[in-house]
Amino acid sequence: MKTKRIFNFNPGPAALPISVLEEIRESFLNFMGTGMSIMEISHRSKEFDDVINDAVARTKRLLNLKDNYHVLFCQGGASLQFHMIALNFLADGKSADYINTGTWSTKAIKEAQILGRSIQVAASSEDKNFSYIPKHIQFSKDAVFVHITSNNTIKGTQWAAFPATGNIPIFSDMSSDIMSRPLDIGKFGLIYAGAQKNIGPAGVCLVIIRNDMLEMIPDNLPSMLNYKTYASKNSLFNTPPCFAIYTVQLVLKWLEETIGGLEKMEALNQKKAHHLYNFIDASNFYRGTAEPASRSLMNITFRLPNEELEKKIVQEALENGLGGLKGHRSVGGCRASIYNATSIEAVESLVDFMANFEKKNG
Amino acid sequence: MKTKRIFNFNPGPAALPISVLEEIRESFLNFMGTGMSIMEISHRSKEFDDVINDAVARTKRLLNLKDNYHVLFCQGGASLQFHMIALNFLADGKSADYINTGTWSTKAIKEAQILGRSIQVAASSEDKNFSYIPKHIQFSKDAVFVHITSNNTIKGTQWAAFPATGNIPIFSDMSSDIMSRPLDIGKFGLIYAGAQKNIGPAGVCLVIIRNDMLEMIPDNLPSMLNYKTYASKNSLFNTPPCFAIYTVQLVLKWLEETIGGLEKMEALNQKKAHHLYNFIDASNFYRGTAEPASRSLMNITFRLPNEELEKKIVQEALENGLGGLKGHRSVGGCRASIYNATSIEAVESLVDFMANFEKKNG
Repeated sequence: MKTKRIFNFNPGPAALPISVLEEIRESFLNFMGTGMSIMEISHRSKEFDDVINDAVARTKRLLNLKDNYHVLFCQGGASLQFHMIALNFLADGKSADYINTGTWSTKAIKEAQILGRSIQVAASSEDKNFSYIPKHIQFSKDAVFVHITSNNTIKGTQWAAFPATGNIPIFSDMSSDIMSRPLDIGKFGLIYAGAQKNIGPAGVCLVIIRNDMLEMIPDNLPSMLNYKTYASKNSLFNTPPCFAIYTVQLVLKWLEETIGGLEKMEALNQKKAHHLYNFIDASNFYRGTAEPASRSLMNITFRLPNEELEKKIVQEALENGLGGLKGHRSVGGCRASIYNATSIEAVESLVDFMANFEKKNG
Repeated sequence: MKTKRIFNFNPGPAALPISVLEEIRESFLNFMGTGMSIMEISHRSKEFDDVINDAVARTKRLLNLKDNYHVLFCQGGASLQFHMIALNFLADGKSADYINTGTWSTKAIKEAQILGRSIQVAASSEDKNFSYIPKHIQFSKDAVFVHITSNNTIKGTQWAAFPATGNIPIFSDMSSDIMSRPLDIGKFGLIYAGAQKNIGPAGVCLVIIRNDMLEMIPDNLPSMLNYKTYASKNSLFNTPPCFAIYTVQLVLKWLEETIGGLEKMEALNQKKAHHLYNFIDASNFYRGTAEPASRSLMNITFRLPNEELEKKIVQEALENGLGGLKGHRSVGGCRASIYNATSIEAVESLVDFMANFEKKNG
């Protein structure tokens, strides 16, 4: 039973800025002088309108979105987006290219296939256990979009630069690196991100969609699975996940006002990741699993000499106030997820602990 | 700007028990000694397993569910359920009966029609502006299910007793009266309820489904739209809305341990509603809009002599610490939503205020 907070390296749900948690707690029984909790106010109230509109405006400012992009709040996580993308954009024999870089790309492909839609896997890194990001990809000329997973939470890889797709818009699952760096937004037709890694709690999925994509959507789709429903109603067709959106709003405020925007966030994220990767690379005890050029700045995956030591370090780390270091159950090993809200202090503590552990067990 | 809490008559999101809000606030920065917020812990952790399993167990106890029922937590609200029901149960020419008792029933019917599935509207109260619950309904012999909306939030009506459908299972949207009274569960094949009225915050939808219904679902549906995905994974196929589920767990605990179960909850709800209806019926100034035999115990809809007075009472009530009394924008008038968490004290204060308002304006 811990009486104080730990350094949290969970892969998602993940660490949130402490100032955000404190602000929520302070107003939890009386939000903005309404005499009600944020969870008890109407989604049609002036107060909630201010919340959702501010979250949209901050997203637009942080990512430099022009007026031809809509910011939407959906539910069902990235997993429902896998279906919605195929349903909205791959009717009538239209086809898309998917790049397979790991577990989540594979799931996106599977959901398009369940729907019986036409897709090509234009490239895959499955041949080397998804330890790298493919290069020199040939895209189909008639692809409606190219789908990528910008950061692979489980395999610890990330697209450092996005592929040159010509006029074909990129659709990207950015669940694990949204808002971690500036984007050249013009390449993207659609971006989606489950909030629970970089921008909030589980239960809301941020979607950014370009106007010309909305115009491609056929009529008569199920209302809750049609991006036009969300775009035309400011995500208020039905009751949205108000509390989750409110938390996202506060995280975006923290990104803008405390961190100072995405360029500064990226510099901090690079500093954190380099500190940890440099330590791992200098060690003969720890070994990174992703190819260096494809490494993620968000999820640092590594192995120890054997599984017994991996189990031991995860347990001892937790006892020392460093949580969430177990690798995904599908791959084993260790993983330090160092999203936006993970501080440099947390990463420095982790490196110190790992050095110490190596001394005692190496 | 209010410095203290108000009496909250919002239709949803709605009032939550103050003890639940206080418990969340107390542990908000350090949940169960993890050193993390409930929003920061893994959905695969022992701590979250305890949360979701306790929420399921309490739902089963409160509603007397046998082992042939599954308790699921979905996203997308009742509006996504409208689609999922048709998608899961009306393939291959199967047909269902829908009873139309208002705005939400109409939406459920519309989503089945968008999907091109076969449904019959077996009864409707549209002829009298949805002010009553239909009786003496003839159901189709080959209906796979009969769909009803157990409580009509906007029109202020409620099924006091459920229709006799013989062997045909009832599917019910119970968003606005779930857990407000005991149920004869055997009649029901599927129940769904957006949490944000009686059992929690917006962002999670409780689904109760009978085993034989699960067996009817075809293979190869989109994973996130297939009830079998949720039933086979204890709602943990992907990251669920953890914080919303946690809040539901605490509300269910309050229902069991503070209120003492659904029979006691029903008695309290009847006492609250009767106090308000009796006052309205005795007045020549206020007028209830629903037929007395069809009145809702949850949403008390009423009119004043004119719209100007309706606007005035909503405003003056709020100034006196009584919030959320405006009728739905589609029907106008006034509405007091008195869900489980609304106290007798709140209803008594409302009646006192209404009596006073009548004296000054009648």
